[in-house]
Amino acid sequence: MRKNPLTLLLLAGIFTVFTGMVLYAQDAREPVVRGLFATLPDEAPVPDDNLMTAEKVELGKMLYFEPRLSASGVISCHTCHNLSLGGTDRLPTSLGHNFQTGGRNAPTVLNAAFFNLQFWDGRANGLEAQAQGPIQAGVEMAMPADLAVSTIADIEGYQPYFEAAFPGEENPITFENIAKAIASFERTLITPDDALDQYLRGDESALSDDAKRGMEVVAQVGCLACHNGPMLSLGTLISFRHGNDVGAAKVTGEEADEYLFRIATWRNVSLTAPYFHDGSAATLEDAVRTMASVQLNRTLTDDEVKYIVAFLSSLEGDIPEVTIPELPAD
Amino acid sequence: MRKNPLTLLLLAGIFTVFTGMVLYAQDAREPVVRGLFATLPDEAPVPDDNLMTAEKVELGKMLYFEPRLSASGVISCHTCHNLSLGGTDRLPTSLGHNFQTGGRNAPTVLNAAFFNLQFWDGRANGLEAQAQGPIQAGVEMAMPADLAVSTIADIEGYQPYFEAAFPGEENPITFENIAKAIASFERTLITPDDALDQYLRGDESALSDDAKRGMEVVAQVGCLACHNGPMLSLGTLISFRHGNDVGAAKVTGEEADEYLFRIATWRNVSLTAPYFHDGSAATLEDAVRTMASVQLNRTLTDDEVKYIVAFLSSLEGDIPEVTIPELPAD
Repeated sequence: MRKNPLTLLLLAGIFTVFTGMVLYAQDAREPVVRGLFATLPDEAPVPDDNLMTAEKVELGKMLYFEPRLSASGVISCHTCHNLSLGGTDRLPTSLGHNFQTGGRNAPTVLNAAFFNLQFWDGRANGLEAQAQGPIQAGVEMAMPADLAVSTIADIEGYQPYFEAAFPGEENPITFENIAKAIASFERTLITPDDALDQYLRGDESALSDDAKRGMEVVAQVGCLACHNGPMLSLGTLISFRHGNDVGAAKVTGEEADEYLFRIATWRNVSLTAPYFHDGSAATLEDAVRTMASVQLNRTLTDDEVKYIVAFLSSLEGDIPEVTIPELPAD
Repeated sequence: MRKNPLTLLLLAGIFTVFTGMVLYAQDAREPVVRGLFATLPDEAPVPDDNLMTAEKVELGKMLYFEPRLSASGVISCHTCHNLSLGGTDRLPTSLGHNFQTGGRNAPTVLNAAFFNLQFWDGRANGLEAQAQGPIQAGVEMAMPADLAVSTIADIEGYQPYFEAAFPGEENPITFENIAKAIASFERTLITPDDALDQYLRGDESALSDDAKRGMEVVAQVGCLACHNGPMLSLGTLISFRHGNDVGAAKVTGEEADEYLFRIATWRNVSLTAPYFHDGSAATLEDAVRTMASVQLNRTLTDDEVKYIVAFLSSLEGDIPEVTIPELPAD
């Protein structure tokens, strides 16, 4: 075969394009290769003392939507952790009993099952402990635990559901079991298969070019130091000095805990504006700029922000389809 | 064949039992025969200027669950007309913006599509007019109409849903269209096939004996004068002097309208305690006794109350299964 200059030029061109593609792909996959990303598991971890059963999940769903667990009779878990709104209320800070606010932004319930520390200040370990908080908090549902139990126990229709969820227990309607059932339902609120996970499983086209660049930028800039792993959050507390809220120190009173807040997940983050513990960042752009500035002492370029936001926006997973439960009459 | 006395006695006995059964069945069916009962249609009437489409129903469902239609961002139609709770909030009187109350009990949204007059005082004609009220009411969602429209229009994700629901309209995001879509969704909230309807369709065993007696009692006592037809309510206003609320006169200022309230439906009534426009009757028993006393000047016996309540409790239809809609991000 005769090799004319045009053929050589064509071959050289193809070689250059191919090499460029390989190098680009390597760049984009670099944090992947370093193991900083991981797909979200299909199932959440389950504690030994609260195994999941279909009956417990069903009861938990009822209780999650149960406004009679609040003093007013209108506020349920779902009021602030609304599955229509990415598992949050999309308010800067939540409104509870008598329209009071505790001054914190409602974290999403979606994938919360993958966190050990719960609440912005990490004051609860596990979903069971978390679920007991807002029911009793005066600015949230404002329902004392014993009144919550007697209210539910007085609704006769709940008895068979508790018996099925907690078989063999003589008196299954307890505050602990209410929380256990709610936690079990929450463990079903997993959002797998977002664009990042599709990409990590081998579908290179799942992420846009901008999102792939964003994936590089968050690695280069340093975001991934805290935002990594399946939740794109270590799930631990980190110092974040922003506003007057002293975070974990509010609970412990310890100076060492001042301004410690749980690292927020990036999964579904584009669904859950506004951002931060005080909801002070209205948009993802705001949040990205502020975090880079406050945490990494870095001013991002407009392009960097654009790429990061494109990446963060590709983290919307499959929201589970939830039918509205029928709750027993009084 | 030799007819011995025992055979004759047996035949006489069988005849007596059979006659008794026929007479009893006739008694029980007597109001049925008089046409006072009718099955609930499977579909609600649809106005010519708001035809139902799947797209309109889908959008309407989103807006029904949309808390951003309220000034606070936490109250939606579903807050007070909760499909988990028989289409009501099961409160004596509803809590709205800033936990204010308008002093009236939330009527159920279930089968509301079969009523022309809406609200306890009948001040709106049709679901479209009704849906516009609570969004704007200061004690409910407290959202001025123009602000409701601009809020929804600012959520980009809504645009394609409005275009699909109102094809060909240049500017489909209007307050009227918001109400039209919500009304279309509400027309799907029909609860057919309760025990009465099964009975009316020929299944004699669908109603318990107590319920059948209750059906007779409500005919004898006079309840059916107002509570008849598919909704077991004429759907019109009737004088009901109970408490200080002057009903329709509050709106019209006319003395002739004092204490006029819409006749409540009996469909699903066992799901929607407490009762009356002011929620002052805690139980169905209370409500039945008070209505007989105030409206019919009659003191019911305990047995009569028991039978009526058994009948009213057999009016729980099939609640439609509703999945929670995903609402677009801001």
